[in-house]
Amino acid sequence: MAKRHTISLKAVYGFNALSRISGLFSGRGFSIDSISFGDAEEPETSRVTITTSGDERIIEQITFQLEKLVDVVEVKDLTYVPHVERELALVKVGCSMANRSEIMQIANVFRAKVIDISPESMTLEITGSRDKVDASITMLEPYGLREVARTGTVALPREYQPKD
Amino acid sequence: MAKRHTISLKAVYGFNALSRISGLFSGRGFSIDSISFGDAEEPETSRVTITTSGDERIIEQITFQLEKLVDVVEVKDLTYVPHVERELALVKVGCSMANRSEIMQIANVFRAKVIDISPESMTLEITGSRDKVDASITMLEPYGLREVARTGTVALPREYQPKD
Repeated sequence: MAKRHTISLKAVYGFNALSRISGLFSGRGFSIDSISFGDAEEPETSRVTITTSGDERIIEQITFQLEKLVDVVEVKDLTYVPHVERELALVKVGCSMANRSEIMQIANVFRAKVIDISPESMTLEITGSRDKVDASITMLEPYGLREVARTGTVALPREYQPKD
Repeated sequence: MAKRHTISLKAVYGFNALSRISGLFSGRGFSIDSISFGDAEEPETSRVTITTSGDERIIEQITFQLEKLVDVVEVKDLTYVPHVERELALVKVGCSMANRSEIMQIANVFRAKVIDISPESMTLEITGSRDKVDASITMLEPYGLREVARTGTVALPREYQPKD
């Protein structure tokens, strides 16, 4: 069964790594849900977090091929280890004086922040798991989504890992 | 002079667009600071936000070539229009009982959230502009950065745009 996987990898700093990684996915027809690319903890290294779906055999194949890429230093599939996952979304939603407080109530429930406002719209900053961000956007949809920009998911393993 | 630019583009959903975009950058030797790739407001579309540096002539060339890519629907350079920008970082930092409260003070100043803790480490979730995230990480560096995962920047234009 296709399960959502979160793959975290470290690469030598520079955009060539991303080009190789995305080329690998598109070339093989592997799907990708989201990708984040930013600085890692050491200088001159980037961390790339990819969420993808597929059955176990395909995911194994993907991680194996990612490991072989030039510039890729480390590949971890975090799916089966305890980890924390977050993403961020900016959502500009249509609103009027009449329904502004409704939208602010939804924002409060999801602990979203209002970061821009105009007579006809509000922009919210939402942070959380992918599910939480999805849920917030679903609640805001009836007001009219004007613009949405989502970062990909980022994830780190929890420090405490159960010994089995 | 090389200035940091934030380019927001919308593409047909699917990973081919990202492969083409990153191929364009690496093929021409254009540098990239960060990239975020996630769902946009309409079904079947993705929004990609890229931060890059270069002089005006190079940026013009980049946006021109991005516009010509298959699967790319819209390209906007947000640098000179009022916009909101955010990114998110997960930072796992070494700590002991002795300096835990120091780290929590830093977290409070930057309104970061502690999302994991162990006897020897803490993981913080930091949200804000790139400068703010950079500043937080610089303050945490002396405690030992164990792992850092940053999303790229995401950005949306402000609704109110001054008429000049």
